[in-house]
Amino acid sequence: MKHAMPLPSYLVKRYNGWKATTYAENSVWYQRLADEGQRPRAMIISCCDSRVHVTSIFGADQGEFFIHRNIANLVPPCKPDGDIHGTSAAIEYAVTALHVTNLVVLGHSGCGGVKGCHDMCSGKAPELEEKSSFVGRWMDILRPGFERVSQLEQETDRVRALEKEAVLVSLENLMSFPFVKDAVDQQKLSLHGLWHDIGKGGLEYYNKDTGEFASV
Amino acid sequence: MKHAMPLPSYLVKRYNGWKATTYAENSVWYQRLADEGQRPRAMIISCCDSRVHVTSIFGADQGEFFIHRNIANLVPPCKPDGDIHGTSAAIEYAVTALHVTNLVVLGHSGCGGVKGCHDMCSGKAPELEEKSSFVGRWMDILRPGFERVSQLEQETDRVRALEKEAVLVSLENLMSFPFVKDAVDQQKLSLHGLWHDIGKGGLEYYNKDTGEFASV
Amino acid sequence: MKHAMPLPSYLVKRYNGWKATTYAENSVWYQRLADEGQRPRAMIISCCDSRVHVTSIFGADQGEFFIHRNIANLVPPCKPDGDIHGTSAAIEYAVTALHVTNLVVLGHSGCGGVKGCHDMCSGKAPELEEKSSFVGRWMDILRPGFERVSQLEQETDRVRALEKEAVLVSLENLMSFPFVKDAVDQQKLSLHGLWHDIGKGGLEYYNKDTGEFASV
Amino acid sequence: MKHAMPLPSYLVKRYNGWKATTYAENSVWYQRLADEGQRPRAMIISCCDSRVHVTSIFGADQGEFFIHRNIANLVPPCKPDGDIHGTSAAIEYAVTALHVTNLVVLGHSGCGGVKGCHDMCSGKAPELEEKSSFVGRWMDILRPGFERVSQLEQETDRVRALEKEAVLVSLENLMSFPFVKDAVDQQKLSLHGLWHDIGKGGLEYYNKDTGEFASV
Repeated sequence: MKHAMPLPSYLVKRYNGWKATTYAENSVWYQRLADEGQRPRAMIISCCDSRVHVTSIFGADQGEFFIHRNIANLVPPCKPDGDIHGTSAAIEYAVTALHVTNLVVLGHSGCGGVKGCHDMCSGKAPELEEKSSFVGRWMDILRPGFERVSQLEQETDRVRALEKEAVLVSLENLMSFPFVKDAVDQQKLSLHGLWHDIGKGGLEYYNKDTGEFASV
Repeated sequence: MKHAMPLPSYLVKRYNGWKATTYAENSVWYQRLADEGQRPRAMIISCCDSRVHVTSIFGADQGEFFIHRNIANLVPPCKPDGDIHGTSAAIEYAVTALHVTNLVVLGHSGCGGVKGCHDMCSGKAPELEEKSSFVGRWMDILRPGFERVSQLEQETDRVRALEKEAVLVSLENLMSFPFVKDAVDQQKLSLHGLWHDIGKGGLEYYNKDTGEFASV
Repeated sequence: MKHAMPLPSYLVKRYNGWKATTYAENSVWYQRLADEGQRPRAMIISCCDSRVHVTSIFGADQGEFFIHRNIANLVPPCKPDGDIHGTSAAIEYAVTALHVTNLVVLGHSGCGGVKGCHDMCSGKAPELEEKSSFVGRWMDILRPGFERVSQLEQETDRVRALEKEAVLVSLENLMSFPFVKDAVDQQKLSLHGLWHDIGKGGLEYYNKDTGEFASV
Repeated sequence: MKHAMPLPSYLVKRYNGWKATTYAENSVWYQRLADEGQRPRAMIISCCDSRVHVTSIFGADQGEFFIHRNIANLVPPCKPDGDIHGTSAAIEYAVTALHVTNLVVLGHSGCGGVKGCHDMCSGKAPELEEKSSFVGRWMDILRPGFERVSQLEQETDRVRALEKEAVLVSLENLMSFPFVKDAVDQQKLSLHGLWHDIGKGGLEYYNKDTGEFASV
């Protein structure tokens, strides 16, 4: 691998600061986590977006949350065809090996992936329709959600609604995995849908009784 | 979606604490990030493991790093076949839309996914060889790495070496994406391989000159 | 301009070292900063004193902080009289053009400018009272602060208190700029007062609830 | 002062990292600097721009450089009229109290202040001509430089040349201060003009023999 470069100095400086403070103060816990392995209580699926920090929002400490982050916090439908499915692998490991008790899908405002899906489904981003577009094919997961919001008149309303559909479509797809459905049916796992407002610092959860998102 | 449950109280409590402190102190910045969009400097690919917090290790604040987390921080080879590829989509978005300047693959000690790959390739985990095993099929990405470490006598040595191979295989696969190769060739992107020791709080980087990992 | 000399060799040597290391490792980021322009999160007003390095204390990397440094980290009152006001220009640019979200005034221990102000106001430095003394006229900004500390008996106490007054007077004067007041009122900007102990490496912030400085 | 807020957590984290590493390793030197006062070798006048770090470029350690930073690294002409002149005060202190031996004016590429001056002098930024514009009045210092570059046909050439004029005008104005002229004449102080290319990491100095800037 002849292309790897040394770590940039600003990251080395940051790491050295962490090592001398947070690590030094908690080294006993970190060593125990290393010796005994992880035992996370929840899995959280959130977006790669640099503005969404589940570790910050939930004050996550080392060992607490098993976190999968992908574009637009999407879960594809279960498709055990022998191909590579990274999100499905993460869910399988969390539920069947780690036995997490909560599985949270965390959507957010201003999601670039969701906006791309909206534009693609509206015919405004033909480049995303191409077979070679990894982002386009990934956002195909959200097409069923677009159909449910396409009747909204204002684009800003449609995009916002689609951000929440990204959470709902993912929750629906989660139930297509037999091991998720079994764990939910046996009350060993509960599913949660959240949507985070980056600018206002807001957090809403999906209320299955009303079918709406509401502030936590 | 009739299975979603309200957010557990321990997460609501954590969120409320964050909202009243970190958010309150930085709301101006968060609102600006919401208004202007993200402009992250680096993409970091790390493991879902609850013990690996890149936001902590690098003191990441909101808006700084675009973070993709999957099992064993793996990057599959580029395969633009029209199927769903979440990791490839995340990399495409980071490099072509966000123009990140650094792409860091962060491996770690005690990785459950890597251990599973080792056992599968050693014939000790036949269940992972099944077509329906999402974790097994995902860890297939690392098989070329196993071949390079299989001659090591001690299992602990093989597993440790395989954790570092997970970084190297991913760096190699990254170069199979035309948009990554182009950005690297045009000196618009640099790649970095890291391995983190959870218990000791250590951090090593891949040194292409020696072909070994060394402390940062 | 017939008086300019070549750069001294010790600075050339330092620069060459930086170019071959820090620059080389981060050239992609520097080129991107050049192409896209700066987007700093905060403005910091600190002293010219060679012992006060905000870039060191806050691990500042290129592109992060808009930094104005003058004698004793002072902000004069807003006076739009058509004359030259360098500090006011820097603040205007940071707030109205760059939209920084935090404005930090950083005072420090052992400040020569503050000591000069103390001596001038105590009648012990008549040369600073002369019209032609640039330092004296600049330190006039801090005279209202001296009145508030002049009752302290010990000179060392008065000087130390005056160092902190330099921060408070500046924060007060900042609010006399309409664009600062508007941004603060609209919650687009927050102001912060700090005092740094050079020898002990300490950092205190002004706590508006107690009216005192306290460790961060 | 009822508007001051606590220090944002990301700055507290950065400070704690510095305290536990750089400070801890050098506390003896910092304490000595606090006890004995500063004794800087050079004064550097550079821009507030977040992308220009003289402490980085010259590997500056605590105590080495007396640094004044303002918009576009400008020095106004000597005008001892009893009004407030921050830049003049900083120069007076550096030369007459600290006896620095080198005085460096460091310009840079992509300077927003210089671009504003160019637009103002070209009639394209009437808002900067208003009496109440602090940035406009500050950039008046550079008007004589604009006249010398106005004949260049291409705007990019004019702006680049004006960035270098900002250095030359400042060097000229420096000689209007009697204490600077005396120190230069007595060979106790040397002046240096530099221009820094942010993207390429370049550094040029003004060569008085050729009247051009050349790589150091």
